[in-house]
Amino acid sequence: MKTAKSVFVADLFDANEPKKTPITVSTLREAEYFADGGYTDILYAVSIEPGKFTRAAALLRQGVRLKVILDNIATASALDEFAKQQDTLFHVFVEVDVDGHRAGCLPDSQELLQLAKSLSSAPNIELLGLMTHAGISYDSENIQQAFEFAEQEQQRILHARDRLLAAGIEVNYVTIGSTPTVVAAESFAGIQEIRPGVFVFFDLFQAQMGACDESDIALSVLCAVTTHKPDQHALLIDAGGLAMSKDRSTAAQNVDYGYGKLVTLEGEETGLIVNAVNQEHGIVKLPEGKLCAEYPIGTRFRVLPNHACMTAAAYDSYHVIDANEPLANWPRCNGW
Amino acid sequence: MKTAKSVFVADLFDANEPKKTPITVSTLREAEYFADGGYTDILYAVSIEPGKFTRAAALLRQGVRLKVILDNIATASALDEFAKQQDTLFHVFVEVDVDGHRAGCLPDSQELLQLAKSLSSAPNIELLGLMTHAGISYDSENIQQAFEFAEQEQQRILHARDRLLAAGIEVNYVTIGSTPTVVAAESFAGIQEIRPGVFVFFDLFQAQMGACDESDIALSVLCAVTTHKPDQHALLIDAGGLAMSKDRSTAAQNVDYGYGKLVTLEGEETGLIVNAVNQEHGIVKLPEGKLCAEYPIGTRFRVLPNHACMTAAAYDSYHVIDANEPLANWPRCNGW
Repeated sequence: MKTAKSVFVADLFDANEPKKTPITVSTLREAEYFADGGYTDILYAVSIEPGKFTRAAALLRQGVRLKVILDNIATASALDEFAKQQDTLFHVFVEVDVDGHRAGCLPDSQELLQLAKSLSSAPNIELLGLMTHAGISYDSENIQQAFEFAEQEQQRILHARDRLLAAGIEVNYVTIGSTPTVVAAESFAGIQEIRPGVFVFFDLFQAQMGACDESDIALSVLCAVTTHKPDQHALLIDAGGLAMSKDRSTAAQNVDYGYGKLVTLEGEETGLIVNAVNQEHGIVKLPEGKLCAEYPIGTRFRVLPNHACMTAAAYDSYHVIDANEPLANWPRCNGW
Repeated sequence: MKTAKSVFVADLFDANEPKKTPITVSTLREAEYFADGGYTDILYAVSIEPGKFTRAAALLRQGVRLKVILDNIATASALDEFAKQQDTLFHVFVEVDVDGHRAGCLPDSQELLQLAKSLSSAPNIELLGLMTHAGISYDSENIQQAFEFAEQEQQRILHARDRLLAAGIEVNYVTIGSTPTVVAAESFAGIQEIRPGVFVFFDLFQAQMGACDESDIALSVLCAVTTHKPDQHALLIDAGGLAMSKDRSTAAQNVDYGYGKLVTLEGEETGLIVNAVNQEHGIVKLPEGKLCAEYPIGTRFRVLPNHACMTAAAYDSYHVIDANEPLANWPRCNGW
């Protein structure tokens, strides 16, 4: 849920029993927000540190099955001690680093075994299993590369699991992440849970990498032409660095979409991108042969984002539309 | 106010009559927020376009002296017509482009004269004067260059004013912008108003450019060490791309601070920067000779931002502190 951060989006995943769906969040505020929205099975997927124990415990007391992750004995011992003082039980995954792009114990490390052993015998900790997120999948140039990273993600975390099993540590839940790898994977044998995030909206980066079609992108920023700059053969629009974010993740891809790609309100191609941004201005350079006058002041476009997670975070709600008809306004949470 | 976006910050500027201070905002939501906070003299400093007339008129009806900017006859005519239908009067500045970095008429252009003439005779428009923002000042490598851009900003807008005066168009208010140019300028002869924004907090970019000292930076992001990565000789912190923004404006300066510079809670140097970010993870590479163990999990730092406007926008309030003692929590507005 780290992309959508909206109870209304989460509720779509199981229309019969929406609040029962286990969800993953990226901040404690998100956890608190979804708990207030009725969700009770929540994985907080950023390494917990002692400064966050109190807030985490408050969620447990509230009846939320909050699951946390960690990758080192110092935090594990501190958490067990804290849980004892609070007379509570923490639910913990060991994070495994499958590609050097995120936190976690290395699959072949002694630390992994020691930590799992320590957690499995800690009286105030329930060791749930292993989790990872294949951050390297964002280096994929195409879906075939993502598939290879997906294979690597699964092989390495299952290798870590097997080492624990061989050491007599019961590990019966393995959770993996990343939109590119779960889209690219062909099977999930031995995997109990997948945690894609950005798939909920997708974006230009994901489309170009092959994780989706561009027509799958469900998030766009409505903008207006505010100024003509005929001397610069450019338009200014009212979507700048804050409206789009300064994420430039398509810069390393075959087609660099600048700060976003302009389509019509109906989603049709315009041949335009946001080439540069100030805080509230987007600068759109016109292709050869196009004139400012073809885009009167006030003309509306949608801007497709490079990175939906970063762009969505600038807004406190979503205008949900169907064929440009407003259907609803869905609040989201931000912050930490 | 486009950086702070907080009534509590605005109120600091004139303790005797805070709400009387004329302020400049960058979105209509900001204008509405400050109007709700009691401010009545507000310049909306992004070119108005027809889709925003209705919201602007609502502020006028609410008793706010909302001032808007534009740079073309099409918008001017549409605004005058709209104002007539609404039986209201719009207060308008003509935007002047002094350096090709923002909207506005060129100072020597015929369009400038025609537009000013048209506005001065439009029955439902009050022509207030000329405004500009020297966006090029963000290309300054040092304060001397900013000074030269400041001279250029003032010379060109005063040249534009003189052309209007010579044409019999009364222009008695000139407003200029940009923190670098107003800090660098030695005088403001002929200028009625300055509109710096980021000066309210300053940031690493401004400090390195010479607009402030690093000790002037009043905004930082509190973070914690969440993970040790001894194999990568790195720490992970819980301030990533959302917490800092993906602004990389120090990348083009002498010292590249990555996504921000880590200082202690007391503001002392650490020799560390945020080298890379994921959504919620910051990656801090350790200098030669430093070990992860010197920074226990849970260690707190402050991260100074590259660009305060972008970083502040991720938060809905400021924790105001004095020597790490909490003094207050000041809400801010975001969005459009």
